[in-house]
Amino acid sequence: MPGNSFGHMFRCTTFGESHGEALGVVIDGMPGGLTVDMEALKSELRRRAPGQHAVHTGRKEEDLPEIVSGVFENKTLGTPITVLVRNTNQRSQDYDQLKDSYRPGHADKTTLDKFGIRDHRGGGRASGRETVSRVIAGYFAGLILPETSFYAYIEQVGNFKLSNAPADHSFDRGEINIPDKKMSDEVVTFLKRCKDTGESAGGTVTLSIKAAPASLGEPVFDKLKADFAKAMISLPACVGFSIGEGWNFAHKPGSEISKDRKNFGGMEGGISNGDDILLKMVFKAPSTVGEKALNGRHDPCILPRVVPVVEAMAKIVMADHYLRQAAYSTFLP
Amino acid sequence: MPGNSFGHMFRCTTFGESHGEALGVVIDGMPGGLTVDMEALKSELRRRAPGQHAVHTGRKEEDLPEIVSGVFENKTLGTPITVLVRNTNQRSQDYDQLKDSYRPGHADKTTLDKFGIRDHRGGGRASGRETVSRVIAGYFAGLILPETSFYAYIEQVGNFKLSNAPADHSFDRGEINIPDKKMSDEVVTFLKRCKDTGESAGGTVTLSIKAAPASLGEPVFDKLKADFAKAMISLPACVGFSIGEGWNFAHKPGSEISKDRKNFGGMEGGISNGDDILLKMVFKAPSTVGEKALNGRHDPCILPRVVPVVEAMAKIVMADHYLRQAAYSTFLP
Amino acid sequence: MPGNSFGHMFRCTTFGESHGEALGVVIDGMPGGLTVDMEALKSELRRRAPGQHAVHTGRKEEDLPEIVSGVFENKTLGTPITVLVRNTNQRSQDYDQLKDSYRPGHADKTTLDKFGIRDHRGGGRASGRETVSRVIAGYFAGLILPETSFYAYIEQVGNFKLSNAPADHSFDRGEINIPDKKMSDEVVTFLKRCKDTGESAGGTVTLSIKAAPASLGEPVFDKLKADFAKAMISLPACVGFSIGEGWNFAHKPGSEISKDRKNFGGMEGGISNGDDILLKMVFKAPSTVGEKALNGRHDPCILPRVVPVVEAMAKIVMADHYLRQAAYSTFLP
Amino acid sequence: MPGNSFGHMFRCTTFGESHGEALGVVIDGMPGGLTVDMEALKSELRRRAPGQHAVHTGRKEEDLPEIVSGVFENKTLGTPITVLVRNTNQRSQDYDQLKDSYRPGHADKTTLDKFGIRDHRGGGRASGRETVSRVIAGYFAGLILPETSFYAYIEQVGNFKLSNAPADHSFDRGEINIPDKKMSDEVVTFLKRCKDTGESAGGTVTLSIKAAPASLGEPVFDKLKADFAKAMISLPACVGFSIGEGWNFAHKPGSEISKDRKNFGGMEGGISNGDDILLKMVFKAPSTVGEKALNGRHDPCILPRVVPVVEAMAKIVMADHYLRQAAYSTFLP
Repeated sequence: MPGNSFGHMFRCTTFGESHGEALGVVIDGMPGGLTVDMEALKSELRRRAPGQHAVHTGRKEEDLPEIVSGVFENKTLGTPITVLVRNTNQRSQDYDQLKDSYRPGHADKTTLDKFGIRDHRGGGRASGRETVSRVIAGYFAGLILPETSFYAYIEQVGNFKLSNAPADHSFDRGEINIPDKKMSDEVVTFLKRCKDTGESAGGTVTLSIKAAPASLGEPVFDKLKADFAKAMISLPACVGFSIGEGWNFAHKPGSEISKDRKNFGGMEGGISNGDDILLKMVFKAPSTVGEKALNGRHDPCILPRVVPVVEAMAKIVMADHYLRQAAYSTFLP
Repeated sequence: MPGNSFGHMFRCTTFGESHGEALGVVIDGMPGGLTVDMEALKSELRRRAPGQHAVHTGRKEEDLPEIVSGVFENKTLGTPITVLVRNTNQRSQDYDQLKDSYRPGHADKTTLDKFGIRDHRGGGRASGRETVSRVIAGYFAGLILPETSFYAYIEQVGNFKLSNAPADHSFDRGEINIPDKKMSDEVVTFLKRCKDTGESAGGTVTLSIKAAPASLGEPVFDKLKADFAKAMISLPACVGFSIGEGWNFAHKPGSEISKDRKNFGGMEGGISNGDDILLKMVFKAPSTVGEKALNGRHDPCILPRVVPVVEAMAKIVMADHYLRQAAYSTFLP
Repeated sequence: MPGNSFGHMFRCTTFGESHGEALGVVIDGMPGGLTVDMEALKSELRRRAPGQHAVHTGRKEEDLPEIVSGVFENKTLGTPITVLVRNTNQRSQDYDQLKDSYRPGHADKTTLDKFGIRDHRGGGRASGRETVSRVIAGYFAGLILPETSFYAYIEQVGNFKLSNAPADHSFDRGEINIPDKKMSDEVVTFLKRCKDTGESAGGTVTLSIKAAPASLGEPVFDKLKADFAKAMISLPACVGFSIGEGWNFAHKPGSEISKDRKNFGGMEGGISNGDDILLKMVFKAPSTVGEKALNGRHDPCILPRVVPVVEAMAKIVMADHYLRQAAYSTFLP
Repeated sequence: MPGNSFGHMFRCTTFGESHGEALGVVIDGMPGGLTVDMEALKSELRRRAPGQHAVHTGRKEEDLPEIVSGVFENKTLGTPITVLVRNTNQRSQDYDQLKDSYRPGHADKTTLDKFGIRDHRGGGRASGRETVSRVIAGYFAGLILPETSFYAYIEQVGNFKLSNAPADHSFDRGEINIPDKKMSDEVVTFLKRCKDTGESAGGTVTLSIKAAPASLGEPVFDKLKADFAKAMISLPACVGFSIGEGWNFAHKPGSEISKDRKNFGGMEGGISNGDDILLKMVFKAPSTVGEKALNGRHDPCILPRVVPVVEAMAKIVMADHYLRQAAYSTFLP
């Protein structure tokens, strides 16, 4: 059964293999009359793009979005918005060595088993490249919630951990989305070494959402927290998700939690309460290591590039739930 | 927008307020001809029921399931299965004191804000009592996957942690689902003390799935891991979810992860690979503490009763994805 | 894949076999705070009930609705509303003769082939009895659109045709929903004769909707007309659907159609334009005829009882689309 | 709420305004490994294209499909298939006169009211041009059901009616899809006159489906007949739908219907029984008449071009239901 759509009211369907003609997204459910700023969209894509920093893969992809439907004279029409990004730099030949081999920890073998066929030129739909469609959808989702601020950053890479959370959403995240100059420098050095030695690293990303609308999230399965969880864990390499204090909740006594409203992470009963929302995600180190990592164009760590994708997914979840709840506003006292 | 349904092919819709007439579930998408064993269903409900152990709330609910549709002469008909459980022991008066007060960390206030009305007699849909419907749905989901074994257990309560994972799925989990006699005794003592002092505790639950079918999970949003995440985080008080090594993945280098196939947690690219699946969930301590906890009938810790619910949700996710994939089996080479 | 749900925002899932314990419906997506009038609900069910008139089957079913969730002190809670109607008068033995025979034109054989099993005691889900759930859902849908008026009536039975459409929605529809005393009397005589001879009859039902909200219906597949069509054709024995002038449109030249706005049937481009909506449905004669019809408790014609069901389905479609459109109201200029 | 998707297992989402950059479709749920024949796809598009005959609009659109995802080396990958058709010949200036006027019977005004904005250059999503996406989706749907034959033809245009149904699916339908040379010639003459005088005409299309799989259709709302009805009535200008004998069922007595299995139209209880399926649809005459029709590039009758679109929609419905049912095949005895 199809699994390439996310959301119900703000519904995005993504498509495209990493080495096919193009990737893209159709967004259905967009309100009409909102202003589209192509420069802002391109800027979001640039945040996700590889090749911007020494620690990234050598690929220089020009992710140029082409809007083929749903926007007229810079305004959304309320019709499906379709955006394409051509794959201009696949260099399929790099991957020919992988034709009959299945990279452990990747979807190579499971894709073949599931569909009876796979595009051996690359990761296909399982490639991190797929997230370009999510960033585009996130841009449009953001137009629905202009007041709400989404700010993600790296909290941990390997054994390097951030000491202090950034004070606010205007805090400089630096070149690789680590809001601490010293840690950022150390991680750059560490990742360069990873790259040279064929090693790879994982880490955590924290997302803060401010000025989130209250009353979002639907009991009992479509709680806001549940849809955040699905959105984040659906990302390649994402293996952990938590709200607020997260794993610390395992040992914290109720008396301590109840002391501070902040501990509820902006949601009570799975419904947003208007407070700041705080989420944390774990991403594992890429499975391609050793010889193979040295030969190909692999990132030793996806964390820096994942930050805008995490923000995009959160925007999609909230825009969807915003529209879901808006339908009932006329019935509220 | 409605949020009380889960699953696409195996679709369950739950209903019922904690202090209303009844709770229950409609399961749509069940195959016909499968044998229903009422005793097995009741036994699952008993595992979730309160009042079985000194550490639980004093409520003695008789969760008697009544099947009102979809089953004829102990066989499923392929039509919607509806199961009701009457609320026989609500004692609404216990909660009257809470009529105009909103318990922090509960859905009381957010429910009122969202719907403009709430059933002040209890937690309504946000009550842990709602999970009775999930356990029923889980029983039927299990009929679709008779070979697959689901086994959850408590790994941590407060500061008590399990030293060794149980050897296999037949390992005795004891009275409160802790597969270690010594730790179990300590936790019972600890929780009794919590109860006496109005304190509460959180913890973690681990779920192991053996003999899981391969090829389940749909790229890119409905990955098996993503739907597990949504299913688990949708549970009351669930604030964290991870796959395999979970939070340890943050610091583990790729070279170490790649060494052992087990580290992929039974899924590659979000699609099951036939290996054992391992999930871990964090549940926070109940927010009702102090005076209020002493007066009411509150569990100081929900972990022991959450274990069968976690198994039920996993069964629902897998049954749904099993049917989703089965549709394509005739097209496979 | 499940097919027992209808609607997206106002979503009803029906359940129950004709000879099982109970039939009913879960409505998910109902706004909170609306007043429920049990007498009004019962009155709708009585309009559908058999045994009210000499032309109907001899069965006297007491369709008593029991609300088991979603309503508290006569107000909707915004949670799923579940309503049950017990089957008190199945007399399964009447049908035992049909155990190994499949009635042509019924779902007996196709149900068995599809699900591998069937409840041979009666029509199961394919029985007209299933529509009791639709009438209940329709009652609640109507609460969402208190201004809009739905009025259906019989236009044709066999060769008897109505000469003049009723002037307005307060026009008396008589005992069997034919708004013309003379035709009504003739049809009663005709149907009594059908009953005595084991014959059966079909006909048409017309539905008029006044004060319908504008802007309902979603391009391009979920046009309002398309969802009306699905709703109506999903009814047992419904074999034809048309809008406005219906079949006359086949030969009418565009110059004539364009003369009168009424010809658009209240929808342009599949979106309601605020005008009266006019739909017409064809129902075929029951397939059970001859000896079998004389032995059992069969209606010679379902038209009289179908009228409230047609209104219910229209209410469900419009309530669903009303909520779908309401989500965007804040974005309109 | 979004309405641009159709189907659940075979799910197509269409996009594109009539005068935007491109139209197209994303198909999600396609099995992997099926062979794609670009020439066959183009040939289907050519059947729908305008400008092939004197009675059609003067527009000569080159509907060249570009597959941008989901197909690799002529095989489907099981991933979303995206196909684009560029709008190369919009000549927007033709429509500038309509900027501030709303064509009666079109979606111009309802679109503006609904979305608060519209693309005044043309019909946008309400244009018949939108059906190009449906034809593409239909081609892929057909790959899932290679044995089943879909054959539609015109039965009536204005007052011209077909005397005899074509003997089989290989019967020549002629230039304008009327399987009768004499009637075809008469209609061509009639439509030329319509064109010259600014008149327009409606009519009916009949669809015959042979070798349809049995057991398709889901009780109670997603009956095969109900989804056919929705699919067809969702087409621009489609105002009537019927099964088998259709409107004749209104007066036919049950004894006559029951005589011949063919009268059930290939479905019993809304589930296909393996017999031939017969559907009939009414399309009304285009609302643009008189002066405006003479100035623009308007078809006086859409029936000839609707025939391949009707077939495409039927293929989509059946492919979707085929996959829905296939999921349960392993549970059948």
